[in-house]
Amino acid sequence: MTTRKDQVRIIPLGGLGEVGKNMTVLEYGDDIIIVDIGVAFPEVEQLGIDLVIPDITYLKGKESRIRGIFITHGHEDHIGAIPFIYPHLRGPIYATQLTLGLIEVKLREHNLLTMADLRPVRSGDRVDLGSFIVEFFHVCHSIPDACGLAIHTPEGIVIHTGDFKFDQTPVDGHQTDFAALTRLGSEGVLCLLSDCVHVETPGFTPSEREVSTTLHKLIGEAPGRVILSTFASLLSRVQQILDIAYYHRRKVAVAGRSLENNVAMAEQLGYLHLPPDTMINVANVGAYPDDEIVIISTGAQGEPMAALSRIANGDHRFISIRPGDTVILSATAIPGNENSVNRIINSLFAQGANVIYPPQARVHVSGHASQEELKLMLNLTRPRFVAPIHGERRHQVHYARLAEAMGHAPDHIFLMENGSVLALDADSAAVVDKVPAGEVFVDGLSVGEVGQVVLRDRQFLARDGMLIVVISVDKATGAVLAGPDIVTRGFVYAREAEELLERTKLRVRQTLDGHGNGRRNEDHPHLTEWSFLNRKIKDAVSEYLYEQTRRRPMVLPVVMEL
Amino acid sequence: MTTRKDQVRIIPLGGLGEVGKNMTVLEYGDDIIIVDIGVAFPEVEQLGIDLVIPDITYLKGKESRIRGIFITHGHEDHIGAIPFIYPHLRGPIYATQLTLGLIEVKLREHNLLTMADLRPVRSGDRVDLGSFIVEFFHVCHSIPDACGLAIHTPEGIVIHTGDFKFDQTPVDGHQTDFAALTRLGSEGVLCLLSDCVHVETPGFTPSEREVSTTLHKLIGEAPGRVILSTFASLLSRVQQILDIAYYHRRKVAVAGRSLENNVAMAEQLGYLHLPPDTMINVANVGAYPDDEIVIISTGAQGEPMAALSRIANGDHRFISIRPGDTVILSATAIPGNENSVNRIINSLFAQGANVIYPPQARVHVSGHASQEELKLMLNLTRPRFVAPIHGERRHQVHYARLAEAMGHAPDHIFLMENGSVLALDADSAAVVDKVPAGEVFVDGLSVGEVGQVVLRDRQFLARDGMLIVVISVDKATGAVLAGPDIVTRGFVYAREAEELLERTKLRVRQTLDGHGNGRRNEDHPHLTEWSFLNRKIKDAVSEYLYEQTRRRPMVLPVVMEL
Repeated sequence: MTTRKDQVRIIPLGGLGEVGKNMTVLEYGDDIIIVDIGVAFPEVEQLGIDLVIPDITYLKGKESRIRGIFITHGHEDHIGAIPFIYPHLRGPIYATQLTLGLIEVKLREHNLLTMADLRPVRSGDRVDLGSFIVEFFHVCHSIPDACGLAIHTPEGIVIHTGDFKFDQTPVDGHQTDFAALTRLGSEGVLCLLSDCVHVETPGFTPSEREVSTTLHKLIGEAPGRVILSTFASLLSRVQQILDIAYYHRRKVAVAGRSLENNVAMAEQLGYLHLPPDTMINVANVGAYPDDEIVIISTGAQGEPMAALSRIANGDHRFISIRPGDTVILSATAIPGNENSVNRIINSLFAQGANVIYPPQARVHVSGHASQEELKLMLNLTRPRFVAPIHGERRHQVHYARLAEAMGHAPDHIFLMENGSVLALDADSAAVVDKVPAGEVFVDGLSVGEVGQVVLRDRQFLARDGMLIVVISVDKATGAVLAGPDIVTRGFVYAREAEELLERTKLRVRQTLDGHGNGRRNEDHPHLTEWSFLNRKIKDAVSEYLYEQTRRRPMVLPVVMEL
Repeated sequence: MTTRKDQVRIIPLGGLGEVGKNMTVLEYGDDIIIVDIGVAFPEVEQLGIDLVIPDITYLKGKESRIRGIFITHGHEDHIGAIPFIYPHLRGPIYATQLTLGLIEVKLREHNLLTMADLRPVRSGDRVDLGSFIVEFFHVCHSIPDACGLAIHTPEGIVIHTGDFKFDQTPVDGHQTDFAALTRLGSEGVLCLLSDCVHVETPGFTPSEREVSTTLHKLIGEAPGRVILSTFASLLSRVQQILDIAYYHRRKVAVAGRSLENNVAMAEQLGYLHLPPDTMINVANVGAYPDDEIVIISTGAQGEPMAALSRIANGDHRFISIRPGDTVILSATAIPGNENSVNRIINSLFAQGANVIYPPQARVHVSGHASQEELKLMLNLTRPRFVAPIHGERRHQVHYARLAEAMGHAPDHIFLMENGSVLALDADSAAVVDKVPAGEVFVDGLSVGEVGQVVLRDRQFLARDGMLIVVISVDKATGAVLAGPDIVTRGFVYAREAEELLERTKLRVRQTLDGHGNGRRNEDHPHLTEWSFLNRKIKDAVSEYLYEQTRRRPMVLPVVMEL
């Protein structure tokens, strides 16, 4: 496959099942631009993994062609991989002020701030990079200062919506930029890359303002303290809570490091307006009557180390639950987190708190467009070609149906995968290639070292634990000098399973006896003697343990030669 | 706490967070009866555990006082622990025919059928056991032949609803027994133990018949094969599918062992009516045109070994997905299973199937009562005291609010935990005691052997894997004879981490050198030399690896004496 220079190539590169959620690459001629560099959170089976970042193998050797990196908004899944990937790519990073503020926090933590080329833009700005002119337009989402991108190319305009919704009454007053979208529609849009993750929901996503109404009522009526947990990045929610608390003459304390940092940064940049005489330190909450307190905390997803978990478990330094407390979970549990969130809800109820959570009350709304908004985006921009991104295959399929129902031809709708190359010119579009686009695991300090082999071992160890058999043998004669000794973890509680372990040792000795202690292995002359012995011990022990327990611990023989 | 003989004592014993879901004990004088003996499924953190069963410590030594075991219906969480617990308790098991059929399958698998005393009853029957007369009344639930129990005691009637809903148009025509409930209400109900798990949903749970309407349409319009996945025990759903398939002149094949067994058993007992000339073997599906086929499969919860997973992954013996297939998930993902179900949905879409699942279409309804039905149960039975069971704390709290809003006094509503003892006489009720009621883990053949120590080790191993350091030392001199050797799994891919492992060995040698090889340990004379050496190696290696990788594998030193 030769690459035509006169085509725009669009390549979603990362998102762990959600196409292009974390990173998308656009190419024209020799120019490359990148949209977003985010992280995904590991799935349950990806044991012990901290983060999942995009695989940038495709960009290796092309670094000098990168003209710019464009970040749509400041959520983790759009900025979180910058510290791991940016040092390998370099180039200027363009984003709005709040987004850059959040990126700076991240770069500072990794001692990378000085090496980064950060360039603030405002919505409406255009960045001219030769083949590409990138125009930022404002969109509503569950974080302020979010943008979509209109990428002007020699073949036409490509619109990348970023994460968006159409909020008719946004808390900060900034609506998704209808004027820019219709103007682009009139100029002629070649391709719309649209967020599609909420396509399964009919109608319009409710406005963030509706949450305000609910919170006003709940905080106004609460007999005692209000503890409200939400996403640390959901600054419009924080603003609403501050305003409502001020109205009801309650002080506000913030619990949780990430929220404290974000509030400080957003206030400094002018994205949060702190009402007078309202903020207090969480350590001083006890100095006020209960019905004059609101605490905003992290941990709405049940994260075990976050403030809300610690409060629920009774090991927060300053806050413990008492009857009369109202706890509001102003967030929806992300699939995979339901059990942790559920445990927290049960524990808070058991301690006498009144716990309020969606859908019991409208204390959260999505930041993503529902069906009617996705249609509106299509009608405003009137693209020639459409590719749903930021969703899984199920969402892409439903989006394609929605677009078809609106008259878009099936062969003008592209369901890409990460790594798919969509090549477009002014008249045509096709998926022409597939490039490497996997998942890279971050675990502790290591990036990419923990791969499938290590993960499979963790899954194996997690299921039935392991059992080590150690023997020392005479190198010359093969005679057993010491052992077998057995060490086991995660299989049986050794103190209560002495008999089983003694019988296992006996089985090892029988295996060694059957082996005759001779060094030559006539059956398998290509194997060294000890690897053959290892295998025999492993098989005999595994079989015996399965027969006795119907479990399959990992069996590891260690033969020491002396 | 002395036990008064003239009180009824109600003790929920098992349910993993859901009070009394799996097992409840009732006592009066010397008589004990048991309601349900079910299993819970392990939570994500309970790595490698197969099943969780109730802890019956409280019943130890009281076996001879057990007059009867009453099973409300045939779901796993009500019968699944019988093979593990019944041999320790014995006594007659009373249940309706279908429920007994499902119990028999289980007992046969465990070679326990001959030792069991199984006594079939019909709804309306009364079993007279002296202090207790137990009356079965029919309830609607997502399995046929489900019952609640009216337990007549010398102090009054205790109603145990079992799992229930009020379905006005049940598929099998049997409604929840309004007449029995009002009669009991007139006789005077001392205490209502009510299912409460669906209390957070307003209104009425839709009828199972509404699923029929949806399935009729979907199966009628499907252009090719229909693959429909549901719970193996949801026999009313299976009946509907059979009838609809027959109407649309499609053959029906069953994929999945548990479903095959249940269908065969239910047909034999008369609970399933197979339409003429409809059932075919799954191996023969290929012999018919696609639009004449319906396949009912197991695996709607994403269970990795079940038929639907195998079909989605392309490793089912007889069925692989092709464009034109319609796959219907006629079940709602239980929290914790969403990710597995989601992966299957995405994979089926990617292979070209049309996938239909709730809430996109009403292809499933709950088997549990919503708010208005819970109120109806309270108004029909008019109990003096109320205790919500079969729910978590959040559900109990919401149920208590609902009952209070209907005029039940707060001090007549009891939120029990597993192990709570609710003591009642004709005039009063109180939680008077707490008895042991934990969780017992089943893992392979072992029941109760895998406890918290083993689980913690599995969690530790799952996070960062493990690393074993083996050395042989001279018993007399303490000199190192061989090693250190290192074996590691789940930490780093050893082939790619040779340098780290070599440096780790060096660190072990330095530790041993610092130790001077002497046998005496002046600092810790109470420790044997080798355990002290073990500890030193472990600490040195753990610290070094954390410093190098920010990970904490389990480090296991093995010192062999020669």
